[in-house]
Amino acid sequence: MQAKTPTACIVVIGNEILSGRTQDKNVAWLAKSLNETGVRLSEVRIIPDVKQTIIDTVNLCRKTFTYVFTTGGIGPTHDDITSDAIACAFGIELELNKEAAAILENQYGKEKLNAARLKMAEIPVGATLIANPVSAAPGFSVENVYVMAGVPGIMQAMFDNIKHTLTGGAKMLSRTISAFTTEGVIADKLTAIQNNYPEVEIGSYPFIRNQRLGTCLVSRSTDETKLVSAHENIRSMLLAITQEVTEEDLAA
Amino acid sequence: MQAKTPTACIVVIGNEILSGRTQDKNVAWLAKSLNETGVRLSEVRIIPDVKQTIIDTVNLCRKTFTYVFTTGGIGPTHDDITSDAIACAFGIELELNKEAAAILENQYGKEKLNAARLKMAEIPVGATLIANPVSAAPGFSVENVYVMAGVPGIMQAMFDNIKHTLTGGAKMLSRTISAFTTEGVIADKLTAIQNNYPEVEIGSYPFIRNQRLGTCLVSRSTDETKLVSAHENIRSMLLAITQEVTEEDLAA
Repeated sequence: MQAKTPTACIVVIGNEILSGRTQDKNVAWLAKSLNETGVRLSEVRIIPDVKQTIIDTVNLCRKTFTYVFTTGGIGPTHDDITSDAIACAFGIELELNKEAAAILENQYGKEKLNAARLKMAEIPVGATLIANPVSAAPGFSVENVYVMAGVPGIMQAMFDNIKHTLTGGAKMLSRTISAFTTEGVIADKLTAIQNNYPEVEIGSYPFIRNQRLGTCLVSRSTDETKLVSAHENIRSMLLAITQEVTEEDLAA
Repeated sequence: MQAKTPTACIVVIGNEILSGRTQDKNVAWLAKSLNETGVRLSEVRIIPDVKQTIIDTVNLCRKTFTYVFTTGGIGPTHDDITSDAIACAFGIELELNKEAAAILENQYGKEKLNAARLKMAEIPVGATLIANPVSAAPGFSVENVYVMAGVPGIMQAMFDNIKHTLTGGAKMLSRTISAFTTEGVIADKLTAIQNNYPEVEIGSYPFIRNQRLGTCLVSRSTDETKLVSAHENIRSMLLAITQEVTEEDLAA
């Protein structure tokens, strides 16, 4: 079943993430949105604004995963090199895309559409545009690679415009429960439950809240019946140890 | 100069990040902390709790980068498989580390040191322990690979304990300035400044604040004189366009 679920890799292109200046917010949002379309996020790579690194990473990932989503580097400034790198990765040329140029002319007017802005209409030959309702300059896709903006509000609008084109598999469902007990106390009992439910992926995540240690248990499966059953086993196991148990309602 | 700066790759091991359930906070913190030691974060990979994926990723990254830091998967539950995977990656055995076992016995007491907790003392033969002042169970390093906890408070304490062992190069310095103007307006002038300062890496990052578009310009270099000079050029360029310019004081 796992093998049939389409997979995705996000390639975050951005020195600003690697320097620690900017906290990435795209990965968590895209992870959830992909799951809603039945696509499983299987890997994320955060790489610098270096052309050869982008080319090598995209070429490897597009062969490994069903879909690749890149974020960042499609603006008008000198450090925006993603479109060029994607064209090189596919061995195709960049061209002034007439549709994209028309969108930009409509946005800025003829007099303000300078060379830098027009650079945002340089798109690999044969690519499909991804509409950008926030700031006009479009993203694009080539085969299974979707090239999107890095600004979260723009990236989200772009993804919402293309998600209907993705072929999803079974949606991953989840149940989450947390308790003020520690992993060391529950580990053996949890292993027994995991062994009884091979179709359910049970994750255990320790946390510290108000200086107290707790554990959050997330069950995930495409099979709702088995998911609910595994989750109820976990709940019973926890309640036998502590009454401080909280059900959490999370989408993924 | 770039080639002499030690590089780092962070390998985030965690289904909870790939599902979107947990927002990663370790990358930005580690990026800044590494920079303070003169090590450049060059790539991040977020991978699932799959043993072979961990092995393959670590083996590739430890040959490519000066240092590799993993986060996550060293607890006592069934989904904590990092230590086992690291041992396999290096082709060495896991053993019950006596020093780690003594730390855990001191933490939990003999009667509460069950098999699950003792699993956290199973460390690759010959590894160096990384102290964990928060919850006792240590991380470890093998050659250039540092294996740390995923909980941010614990990871940070572990890193603070090992950072003096890293060999750093020149520290990357930075200056940041933002203005309510758009990239399309300044792109050509910015390219000219970038061309005049090849030793300075100038990044341009659009933002939306209070529904207004702006641009944040980050200059980074190990050469402070050239950095300050490039930054002053950028400031003058911006002030000729708008008075709405803000200097930002950021560490990296």
